[in-house]
Amino acid sequence: MNEVGQQAGTTEVGQQVGRNEIGQRIGGNKAGQSDQPSDLARLVATLLVVRCSGHLADGQRRYPRWELDNGTLQRLLGAGVGGVILLGGSAAELRLRTRQLQAWASSDLLLCADVEEGVGQRFEGASWLVPPLALGRLHGDDPAAAEELAERYGRCSGREARALGLNWVLGPVCDVNNNPANPVINVRAWGETPATAGALAAAFVRGAQAEGVLCCAKHFPGHGDTASDSHLELPLLAHSRERLEAVELPPFRAAIAAGVASVMTAHLLLPELDRERPATLSAAVLTGLLRQELGFGGLVVTDALVMEAITAHHGAGEAAVLALEAGADLVLMPADADAAMAAIVAAVEQGRLGRERLEASAERRRQALARLPGSSKAAAGSVAVTSPDPLGPLTAAGFLGAAAREPLGPLSNGPIAADRQLALELVRRSLCHQGGRVSPPAASPGLAGGISLIRVDTALGCPFLQPAAPALTRATAAGFRPVVLDGCSPSPWWIGPADASGPNDGLGEASTPHPHEPAAAAAAPATGAPIAETGPLDLTRLGEGPVLLQLFVRGNPFRGSAAGREPWEAVIGQLQRAGRLAGLAVYGSPYLWESLRPLLEKGTPAAWSPGQMPLAQAELLAVLGLGTPAGRGDGFTD
Amino acid sequence: MNEVGQQAGTTEVGQQVGRNEIGQRIGGNKAGQSDQPSDLARLVATLLVVRCSGHLADGQRRYPRWELDNGTLQRLLGAGVGGVILLGGSAAELRLRTRQLQAWASSDLLLCADVEEGVGQRFEGASWLVPPLALGRLHGDDPAAAEELAERYGRCSGREARALGLNWVLGPVCDVNNNPANPVINVRAWGETPATAGALAAAFVRGAQAEGVLCCAKHFPGHGDTASDSHLELPLLAHSRERLEAVELPPFRAAIAAGVASVMTAHLLLPELDRERPATLSAAVLTGLLRQELGFGGLVVTDALVMEAITAHHGAGEAAVLALEAGADLVLMPADADAAMAAIVAAVEQGRLGRERLEASAERRRQALARLPGSSKAAAGSVAVTSPDPLGPLTAAGFLGAAAREPLGPLSNGPIAADRQLALELVRRSLCHQGGRVSPPAASPGLAGGISLIRVDTALGCPFLQPAAPALTRATAAGFRPVVLDGCSPSPWWIGPADASGPNDGLGEASTPHPHEPAAAAAAPATGAPIAETGPLDLTRLGEGPVLLQLFVRGNPFRGSAAGREPWEAVIGQLQRAGRLAGLAVYGSPYLWESLRPLLEKGTPAAWSPGQMPLAQAELLAVLGLGTPAGRGDGFTD
Repeated sequence: MNEVGQQAGTTEVGQQVGRNEIGQRIGGNKAGQSDQPSDLARLVATLLVVRCSGHLADGQRRYPRWELDNGTLQRLLGAGVGGVILLGGSAAELRLRTRQLQAWASSDLLLCADVEEGVGQRFEGASWLVPPLALGRLHGDDPAAAEELAERYGRCSGREARALGLNWVLGPVCDVNNNPANPVINVRAWGETPATAGALAAAFVRGAQAEGVLCCAKHFPGHGDTASDSHLELPLLAHSRERLEAVELPPFRAAIAAGVASVMTAHLLLPELDRERPATLSAAVLTGLLRQELGFGGLVVTDALVMEAITAHHGAGEAAVLALEAGADLVLMPADADAAMAAIVAAVEQGRLGRERLEASAERRRQALARLPGSSKAAAGSVAVTSPDPLGPLTAAGFLGAAAREPLGPLSNGPIAADRQLALELVRRSLCHQGGRVSPPAASPGLAGGISLIRVDTALGCPFLQPAAPALTRATAAGFRPVVLDGCSPSPWWIGPADASGPNDGLGEASTPHPHEPAAAAAAPATGAPIAETGPLDLTRLGEGPVLLQLFVRGNPFRGSAAGREPWEAVIGQLQRAGRLAGLAVYGSPYLWESLRPLLEKGTPAAWSPGQMPLAQAELLAVLGLGTPAGRGDGFTD
Repeated sequence: MNEVGQQAGTTEVGQQVGRNEIGQRIGGNKAGQSDQPSDLARLVATLLVVRCSGHLADGQRRYPRWELDNGTLQRLLGAGVGGVILLGGSAAELRLRTRQLQAWASSDLLLCADVEEGVGQRFEGASWLVPPLALGRLHGDDPAAAEELAERYGRCSGREARALGLNWVLGPVCDVNNNPANPVINVRAWGETPATAGALAAAFVRGAQAEGVLCCAKHFPGHGDTASDSHLELPLLAHSRERLEAVELPPFRAAIAAGVASVMTAHLLLPELDRERPATLSAAVLTGLLRQELGFGGLVVTDALVMEAITAHHGAGEAAVLALEAGADLVLMPADADAAMAAIVAAVEQGRLGRERLEASAERRRQALARLPGSSKAAAGSVAVTSPDPLGPLTAAGFLGAAAREPLGPLSNGPIAADRQLALELVRRSLCHQGGRVSPPAASPGLAGGISLIRVDTALGCPFLQPAAPALTRATAAGFRPVVLDGCSPSPWWIGPADASGPNDGLGEASTPHPHEPAAAAAAPATGAPIAETGPLDLTRLGEGPVLLQLFVRGNPFRGSAAGREPWEAVIGQLQRAGRLAGLAVYGSPYLWESLRPLLEKGTPAAWSPGQMPLAQAELLAVLGLGTPAGRGDGFTD
């Protein structure tokens, strides 16, 4: 601490003066004069949301390039960084982690996660629910039931988030998924029409916020009608203002009317609103449209600034300054937190960004925190909490006190009964089934009778395809030996004579996440191959016996393909011509299901669940007659 | 509680009478007369060690067929079951879990795990060390250094086990791995000679027990010279008494001399000692050899009774009775805990098993617990603890008190510096390298220049091959696209014309864990294939470019192959003939390394690490010149 700081903090100003007043006095320090963050730097820091793993130890990080190490985290939180987004780890570990982070911070943190599909989607041990689009589909038939389920969905998510120390749920997705090829939104959306998406998103907000967390409507002004992934590039949405009003905006209006505490911006270029800047960095979109026209007075947070849509065009510091200039309150995952803070401080000092602009954002942040139960500032407008508070107040002191009172904590044996019931009800109501039960293959001694071909984006570390996953164990128990395909497995596709002389079999494009595209396989009958085997799959390599197809396909950031490049339609035809299609299971995408379903021969057992988690697998396979867990003899240790 | 029990417990006998005396009075109750466990039943229960997951919630179990659900656990611990073996979950979660179990029990539990290679082998976030055989190899060159490292290995394991609430480390393996084809011991052994195994096992015991945990020498009388897996069948060891004395027994004698607290039995048939019963159930082995000849006075625990070597021949109840009759004190993982308890109670009531026999076992168990630091009965002979006690006494009250005092706990940012240093030192000292650095492949736009063929037992849920594993990211960064082979991936092997008409390409044997055996691939030149491509791999399917082979092979229970069925020697030849072997990395088995190394052309970059964990990958790839983590652009969310 230098002399000026010391004087200001302890001698000249004394203990009676509040932090804010000190800040105004010493805020004018030039950067570099002080080892301690100036009050301007501290003000700027509160507006950042940095990323870390939900695991306690650095060595456990799954995305070490993106997740700050504990030393950096502790330094940043000590310097006043005001929010953290978490991913990964079990529910039990998250609960310790949120306490650890809060203990490193000097004031109350915003602690958030992308728990769009239940807290268990990201943190094992909590409730993992079917994706929202499942309810979007139900809404067409039974709107009241769908809205009631969406509110319970929000209740479950909010309750579990709060129990584990999160206070900010980064949902609901308010994008209208009217483009089935959307690789990044897809089943994460609550609907394919504005009315459905709006009604269900609002119900989710009511449910979750009633449990004492903040929600976040995203991705403003609407990311549903894109066919590219803003994690990888900047999508363009060339719609008119009228069209936005008709399709994209209504769900955001509905969420705002339901009292949603925050809105997240999209990395989309909307030339009708702003010819130069993506929504995240556009004053026309954030200040003009969101604040002024839609009248939103809550927190505006950017989507992650590390995404390629931003970093390909702007440096880490400049992107953060542009976002705040445009009207964002909080900056999520800047590519470099220190660079972002330095650039914002410099922009204020240069007069480019008004300090009162940042003060207003900080005030909105304080008001959001004050809505939380147990906040020392909770007053008028605070979020109503109707269930007992399992962890005590979501404040620094409250966290640590509750930890001592209840060392094992809530969720120590998984979700409460009501949430388990909800998860099951959602799976059952959204399951589609036709064609009866799968016939178990005839097995000969020492040989499995059939094959279960399981397609998944990434097998390594796949949270829903652990070795005990029903998709594996129940297929095995019925005599279907699992063969798992992902982007790193050897190719299962037919290589014709022409392909064989080529460089590879379609595995060669290392830059594409889904290499399972046979070169020209579906079209080219292979010389000498029996006619029944003509098709994209190399059936000789698979072996004999009936094939149970299990396709895990949905839009996923970075890896979402919506299966467009994989010839599953042709595979269905090939297996049926060979008399070898035992059954079809689609987990995730309704669009893939709808494209394959008409191709099935009458009576072929087939089912779709929008969910991919073990519960969805178990329920889906049960309706296909594969309800028996694996028999004895499976291993019991690593 | 029935009248007799009530009287005995509260009225007639009164509060002054100790539990043991009550037990003797009411022990004669017939089973079925009481809802409460009789004291005999409670005595029997203390001798059981049941299995559960290290995760808190039932839904998180990885082996749900073998891991008791929480309801059953709570019931059994309430009925007096005295021990639990845990597997799975992070270090942070285990720490909560051990507290949860202790809270469900009425008295101090034995809490154990198979943490033979550091606590991090089973519980992510703690130290994961190279397998013991790494030090066995070093011992030949530098015995003093190897013994000092083995003692530090024990220190690290004991300290971390205790910090997480375990009080019983199920190690060291005292088997002499003199059979390279051993599928189940292999690199888990401390040596390939009796002298090395004994010296290092004793050093481990000294280190671990000095940290305040109990150790366990296993698998008595020696499982090193077997070529089959007792998880799957009952191996036979036809050695003479003299040979046992010369090879198998010395490491156990050394561990006993070092004060090891317990010994675990092997499921092996040793006809020279007992023509009928495997060691686990043999009085000649447990009482005659271990107790009387070797003079072991500590705890004798069976290996898991659920293993096929036992269950194929004996029912759950009978196996437990036979083990206790033979001289075991504790029964590990009975196939059915209730059946085991009922059978033991019946055996006592029928006079087949003396009650004093069980009382003696319970007394040995009490004495073992009394050796632990913080035990209320700790006295003469207690284990010396020289490091500060991070969690307080390992007693029921101690656990819960410490939890309140220190909510985040030790290991909340991974291992301490000394243990991180040990892990690194062990990797570096055991790494073998030859032939220099790998040349990065020439990459053309949009195509990775080469391939990294990665062989692993099971990719799904693989703890060392998460998406951020160096074997994946560093190979990718250098231009080698990963292709991962495991028992569930499509076959990478060549199918000749003869094979093509057969049922499949070697993938068909569903009952074998390693289907990657090409039918007759190495031998049969394929018609029309270029000569350079002749060999077991189907290079056309792999694609072009140099190949970096990364082979994760070691003996593992259930999945251990020691790679005997896979033609890696022929693959080396095939890739070299094609001029395509960029380098070789072997993680795990020294035997595979030794078989491949002589086949390498001079100058081919190659390395072996006995470890498979990410640290070993990073260090091995660094010496091969692949030290750079992956570049930008990798995904940052699930």
